Amino acid sequence: MKKGTVFVLSGPAGSGKSTVREALMSRGLNFHYSVSDTTRKPRAGEVNGVDYNFITREEFEEGIARGDYYEHAKYTGEYYGTPVSQLEPYIESGVNVILEIEVDGAMQVKKRDKNAVLVMLLPPSFSCLEARLRGRGTETEEKIRRRLARARAEVLHFDKYDYFLLNDDDGVEACVRQLEIIAEAQSYRTGNYPDFPTKFFNT
Amino acid sequence: MKKGTVFVLSGPAGSGKSTVREALMSRGLNFHYSVSDTTRKPRAGEVNGVDYNFITREEFEEGIARGDYYEHAKYTGEYYGTPVSQLEPYIESGVNVILEIEVDGAMQVKKRDKNAVLVMLLPPSFSCLEARLRGRGTETEEKIRRRLARARAEVLHFDKYDYFLLNDDDGVEACVRQLEIIAEAQSYRTGNYPDFPTKFFNT
Repeated sequence: MKKGTVFVLSGPAGSGKSTVREALMSRGLNFHYSVSDTTRKPRAGEVNGVDYNFITREEFEEGIARGDYYEHAKYTGEYYGTPVSQLEPYIESGVNVILEIEVDGAMQVKKRDKNAVLVMLLPPSFSCLEARLRGRGTETEEKIRRRLARARAEVLHFDKYDYFLLNDDDGVEACVRQLEIIAEAQSYRTGNYPDFPTKFFNT
Repeated sequence: MKKGTVFVLSGPAGSGKSTVREALMSRGLNFHYSVSDTTRKPRAGEVNGVDYNFITREEFEEGIARGDYYEHAKYTGEYYGTPVSQLEPYIESGVNVILEIEVDGAMQVKKRDKNAVLVMLLPPSFSCLEARLRGRGTETEEKIRRRLARARAEVLHFDKYDYFLLNDDDGVEACVRQLEIIAEAQSYRTGNYPDFPTKFFNT
């Protein structure tokens, strides 16, 4: 049976990553959204088990020790990780899994699974990203600076990603459609059919 | 400006490769079909400059010496090759180029251009391929055996190809649509936008 594919969606804060992912998920396609574990505190409006599984540092470190994480990384002192249980059972049963994670995790995923697809979502320019972050008007200057610095570092890994989606002013629908196209193309990859040549000769 | 992509379509005799390629070309999309040079004699109905450029052995060997070929290979004593002029001007001006060539040439293309996309077209099974070849009723037993042997060898390179299209009994339309999807996905590859990060930071 054809396995599912792991899709990693990365992009700096302000790139519209969550909006695109939510729009994709609302289409009812063959995608499972992988909910990450984190040790950071929930923000206002975040729901445990939906946005993240909020767990303690001890629980996370025990999970690492047990090999429970497909990938994990630490940002500003807090752990973030994808439990193997959010991924392997879906892939094995032919469902695509979408991870919304950052560059470090994306590189770990690609290393474990060469069929994984890394997608980077970006606004047209850095100044546009800055304007979006400032436009929210909800964050301190220090936080904005930190996010911009991280965005700068992320974009330097552009060429390690497979695909690039440009999220311009009203790009969400276009990006979702493009993700669907990428997912369909991916379903024709030879890597999905390792047994085909044997089957070809024996039938 | 975004460059075009090189698509290689390979598949054994009887896979329906030419039918799929002709149907793709008839859509009037952004594809140029690269006409190969060959030293073999034209078959009944083949038109010089359309099916192949039929040239002499001396011309072909001079071309090799001049570096005129993007890829070339020899089968049963005859040369086949893609002139650089059938490819580079199109790619540079943003047009996709489709090559209908065999495994040796496909490997040369991928080596020169890591953004090239290799697609293998196959019927569901070897016995189905054999039935199709025999069903034509136009070829000698010896020729059929030779083609089947070559098909066998080609399929062993399955995993060196990027994509696999299954051409079952009435699969031509499906294969053309799948090629279009693959081509669209390809247009979102980061490799097409090497200058994006610089542009991102400077605008």
